[in-house]
Amino acid sequence: MVMHPPDQEHTDDQMIKVEVNLDDTPGEWLGYVMDKLFEAGANDVYYTPIYMKKNRPAVQLQLLCSKNHLEKMKEILLLETTTLGIRYYPLSVYRMERRMRTVDTKWGTITVKEGLLEGEVVKVSPEYEDCRMLAEKHQVPLKQIYETVWGLLGNAY
Amino acid sequence: MVMHPPDQEHTDDQMIKVEVNLDDTPGEWLGYVMDKLFEAGANDVYYTPIYMKKNRPAVQLQLLCSKNHLEKMKEILLLETTTLGIRYYPLSVYRMERRMRTVDTKWGTITVKEGLLEGEVVKVSPEYEDCRMLAEKHQVPLKQIYETVWGLLGNAY
Amino acid sequence: MVMHPPDQEHTDDQMIKVEVNLDDTPGEWLGYVMDKLFEAGANDVYYTPIYMKKNRPAVQLQLLCSKNHLEKMKEILLLETTTLGIRYYPLSVYRMERRMRTVDTKWGTITVKEGLLEGEVVKVSPEYEDCRMLAEKHQVPLKQIYETVWGLLGNAY
Amino acid sequence: MVMHPPDQEHTDDQMIKVEVNLDDTPGEWLGYVMDKLFEAGANDVYYTPIYMKKNRPAVQLQLLCSKNHLEKMKEILLLETTTLGIRYYPLSVYRMERRMRTVDTKWGTITVKEGLLEGEVVKVSPEYEDCRMLAEKHQVPLKQIYETVWGLLGNAY
Amino acid sequence: MVMHPPDQEHTDDQMIKVEVNLDDTPGEWLGYVMDKLFEAGANDVYYTPIYMKKNRPAVQLQLLCSKNHLEKMKEILLLETTTLGIRYYPLSVYRMERRMRTVDTKWGTITVKEGLLEGEVVKVSPEYEDCRMLAEKHQVPLKQIYETVWGLLGNAY
Amino acid sequence: MVMHPPDQEHTDDQMIKVEVNLDDTPGEWLGYVMDKLFEAGANDVYYTPIYMKKNRPAVQLQLLCSKNHLEKMKEILLLETTTLGIRYYPLSVYRMERRMRTVDTKWGTITVKEGLLEGEVVKVSPEYEDCRMLAEKHQVPLKQIYETVWGLLGNAY
Repeated sequence: MVMHPPDQEHTDDQMIKVEVNLDDTPGEWLGYVMDKLFEAGANDVYYTPIYMKKNRPAVQLQLLCSKNHLEKMKEILLLETTTLGIRYYPLSVYRMERRMRTVDTKWGTITVKEGLLEGEVVKVSPEYEDCRMLAEKHQVPLKQIYETVWGLLGNAY
Repeated sequence: MVMHPPDQEHTDDQMIKVEVNLDDTPGEWLGYVMDKLFEAGANDVYYTPIYMKKNRPAVQLQLLCSKNHLEKMKEILLLETTTLGIRYYPLSVYRMERRMRTVDTKWGTITVKEGLLEGEVVKVSPEYEDCRMLAEKHQVPLKQIYETVWGLLGNAY
Repeated sequence: MVMHPPDQEHTDDQMIKVEVNLDDTPGEWLGYVMDKLFEAGANDVYYTPIYMKKNRPAVQLQLLCSKNHLEKMKEILLLETTTLGIRYYPLSVYRMERRMRTVDTKWGTITVKEGLLEGEVVKVSPEYEDCRMLAEKHQVPLKQIYETVWGLLGNAY
Repeated sequence: MVMHPPDQEHTDDQMIKVEVNLDDTPGEWLGYVMDKLFEAGANDVYYTPIYMKKNRPAVQLQLLCSKNHLEKMKEILLLETTTLGIRYYPLSVYRMERRMRTVDTKWGTITVKEGLLEGEVVKVSPEYEDCRMLAEKHQVPLKQIYETVWGLLGNAY
Repeated sequence: MVMHPPDQEHTDDQMIKVEVNLDDTPGEWLGYVMDKLFEAGANDVYYTPIYMKKNRPAVQLQLLCSKNHLEKMKEILLLETTTLGIRYYPLSVYRMERRMRTVDTKWGTITVKEGLLEGEVVKVSPEYEDCRMLAEKHQVPLKQIYETVWGLLGNAY
Repeated sequence: MVMHPPDQEHTDDQMIKVEVNLDDTPGEWLGYVMDKLFEAGANDVYYTPIYMKKNRPAVQLQLLCSKNHLEKMKEILLLETTTLGIRYYPLSVYRMERRMRTVDTKWGTITVKEGLLEGEVVKVSPEYEDCRMLAEKHQVPLKQIYETVWGLLGNAY
């Protein structure tokens, strides 16, 4: 596997999507399973509502990971859910060039992730955890923090 | 409670909607629970995917029943699911005038439910179980049976 | 019914929620039905995925309207979908004080809806149709238009 | 309002369901909003996927609270989301008799919530947070902890 | 790439599925994005409700396109949504033989798409836009137009 | 194709995922279609709610089958639904070692499926059909049967 510096534009062909259908795992366990999979190196984990045979509302777990994390993901899924198997297939992931900067607000400093296309900033995304912490500390609506950051970044384009 | 003959247009003000959120009942049990509720007199039972706290994909059970079935529904929900409570509220149900007729196809006779508005047929609905049985008996696509019935009913309007 | 000027804070107790479960209406018709209901005066119409008996993925149509629109809604639902009945119940709608203003961008003028709580602006919302038209006319990403407006409004708080 | 001791069987007629449709609030804010609503006294908060006009995938927030929490809930929803209004209606909540007990496992003690119907235990539910903490502390699958507790409780019936 | 005449049965191995998870794009933008993707040559675009980390209700955008449209799709997704990357994988698309015919109703002519399997018509599908236009012009329920066409086509089998 | 004895741990690389988007098939037909696909050899069939163009709530059918069942699946989908095409791609399925055992309860004998990882039982799953039959025969809640089996299996770990 070739290592890409994480902030350059690149396409990663060593990624795997894993899917598991769960019709007998209580929903209560699934938040926990998600945390375990992220801790073990999953790039993304998410749930989709599905309907299975015998009138069963169920959940599909999907996760993205690099090929070399597959064994670890499989082990967690087999130990923590009720499934007896998993399925998977390779896919390609394109990631645009990105860089971090900071913005100063009256409540504190917030990191912003920028996405660049052909050298131009086309996307600015305030970091959720920074905004959340300032919202809680200063008892300000989270929405107001985001909108203030967008206001300060308004000349980015 | 005033009894309405079931096929006249009427509005029923004695109906109840019951809701239960389930984040620790395995989906596997829920098809069974649905059957039990219908057998005990529910007018309708259905599931909606919901997302609850702590990242839990979950299921909302909703059911419609007349007020005098509420106690029976409550008992089934408490015994067959993991919930510790139920919630409910009254609603009104309007039902249009309806009548049954039959249609002869080359595979056999099919019952059709007609809906009438101000004395005029505005809706014709082949009975699913009749269509399904003929489809299986004659090894014909279910879709073809429905479309044939719609063809024969095409002059209904 | 008491008429409220539409832009003052008020609570409307003359609203109705209507629900219909649809397991035999093709999805293809439902976008059309939504348009018809809005044209006839519905305040909101939306769809929820549900699972019904006999392993049927289905759709629940919900709509909000004032009491005096109920008859018209009922007629459309009975004529345009396959349902033989509808159910409904009253609810209260609280609406905050709102007012319109405009913002000038380099692409043109955009109307913004402001929401006020105790006389203070807590919400600014660019009108979608204005943004969409300018995005199409100038071949600019819609996202860029919104973010520019938020930037210009950044001092609103 | 009459106060019920929380562990006796009772029906509470002072509850309210609040609903808000959100088609312009980013999903990223909604986990935060849920936390705020629970902290402010909501009995339950959950999200349902809906489809709104103009091809918009959206989210319906629903929450349950007692009547005397309604004003606080309204304030959070208006400050933290993009909505300009909320809707609500009363409902009844039945809660079965419940009591707490503990179970000792080889990893530690776990609290179990029991539900009683006519004086008989019909439901035993290990507390999620207890199970989660022991699972993390001892690096045991969460599922194994639950199943062990169910094993120890197997004679409850 | 080999060109297939669009109406012969064939399997196309030059197709790509693209997926993007969106937890910070407002739903309001997504109807617009769908239109842009179709205009730029997507074969299909659709949304699925998903649940992501940190209790976020979110949306997965999926699209199908031929390999030679991938670059254009990528550009739209990066400019019009908040995503910093996309993922994709190849798939095969089988398309059955199809041909168009017309049917005359009392309201006007409607195009019908027929699907053929081994030379036999197994599927007849009235064109939505034709039906919609006649429904609006003549103020007839859309459902009635479809059912009339199915009636006229009833002998197709 | 290499045949694996079904109960040994193995990875199967001859599996196919098939997808079909359905916006004009009534939900009423889809439970039937699911049964037909299972009877014809599908390993799994399930539905996901999707939103398609023109404001259409729709359904995605997904199925898993071995390569040599693909033709049969295609035929059923084309004859029983309204689709004019299907899409598919290969995937790998990992299945853990499994074995069957039985457990005796006071209501009768229940088969349990065990999943093994590196020779150790990490999963025990009571067979739904056994539990359902005993629940119905003895008029006991299905939940109670499952919990009793889990109690009896509590020492499995």
